[in-house]
Amino acid sequence: MTPPIAEVPLRKAYRLINHGPTVLVSARAAGVDNVMAAAWCCGLDYDPPKLTVVIAQGTKTRELVERSGMFVIQVPTVGQLHLTDAMGTHSMIEDPGKLGRFGVKLFGMDGFDLPFVAGCSAWLACRLVPEPHNQEAYDLFIGEVVGAWADARVFNDGRWLFETADPALRSLHHVAGGQYYAVGEGMSAKSAR
Amino acid sequence: MTPPIAEVPLRKAYRLINHGPTVLVSARAAGVDNVMAAAWCCGLDYDPPKLTVVIAQGTKTRELVERSGMFVIQVPTVGQLHLTDAMGTHSMIEDPGKLGRFGVKLFGMDGFDLPFVAGCSAWLACRLVPEPHNQEAYDLFIGEVVGAWADARVFNDGRWLFETADPALRSLHHVAGGQYYAVGEGMSAKSAR
Repeated sequence: MTPPIAEVPLRKAYRLINHGPTVLVSARAAGVDNVMAAAWCCGLDYDPPKLTVVIAQGTKTRELVERSGMFVIQVPTVGQLHLTDAMGTHSMIEDPGKLGRFGVKLFGMDGFDLPFVAGCSAWLACRLVPEPHNQEAYDLFIGEVVGAWADARVFNDGRWLFETADPALRSLHHVAGGQYYAVGEGMSAKSAR
Repeated sequence: MTPPIAEVPLRKAYRLINHGPTVLVSARAAGVDNVMAAAWCCGLDYDPPKLTVVIAQGTKTRELVERSGMFVIQVPTVGQLHLTDAMGTHSMIEDPGKLGRFGVKLFGMDGFDLPFVAGCSAWLACRLVPEPHNQEAYDLFIGEVVGAWADARVFNDGRWLFETADPALRSLHHVAGGQYYAVGEGMSAKSAR
């Protein structure tokens, strides 16, 4: 089935990654698409929304990001555990067929010449904010979010629905060496405000 | 009781925040201590370990970090939900008594002139890596981790023990407006490697 993908207002886009999930970074240049996993992706600003992501030197995805000036951050799901781990451990440079071999399916969004990974719970299309010193010294890339979408079964009206959605749609949070935690119980601190 | 706090080898310190928890940032300068919550804290490098944290302009904690060049990142627990939320919504500038009013207890670590928040599950003492452009343009601060410790009941031998530890020790992951998720089920992708 095709999940109901809904646009997320840009001012609420930070909520898609605010809880610290491991993400997939994808990019396209000169007809080549790639996808890699990244645990080091983080919100940076609300309006316009910006984020940071660490993309190691020598990766194919970094080359594509630097060439195109665009990338997608997407939030993979528990149902994509092995796909996500494989995208973090297999380099396209050594393993050119990695996307097909690990079942990565890409799709497009109108108005964006970017590869989006099917089956994720959320997608943030980003324009690279060039900061050569950060990129060279720290492998640190800044993106301005220029489009955001979510699977409406698990994120709707600005809120994650992990409490009630299919558990296979929970986000993944990598610790090290293939050990992950899924997102867990929801809780509110509103009473203290 | 006093929990068993154990030193974490610096090369494994990134694991304390790799799963994307909301953190508390604390700092000390000229006899003043403060603590604030931050959802935007992220790993940046392994060895030596570095991290990024976004600290808004106009906060007391930022002033203390800029004056002292040091800060602590600590991982608060589900048992500290209301304390954590209060540290993110109350500014010391408007509410000078906020630490005492919300039950924040500080303690010291030998060799570090820094305030550590009691009851957290992990602590990373950081030396500011000055990057004035990042700090001014993006509120983005880089720290090199120079000391790391964890509550051995929930992090031991380089691994989180959320599966078996007291649920009150789970990490918190803020979405927006006082809505949090606790860390959830553990899962391994090792079979795919």
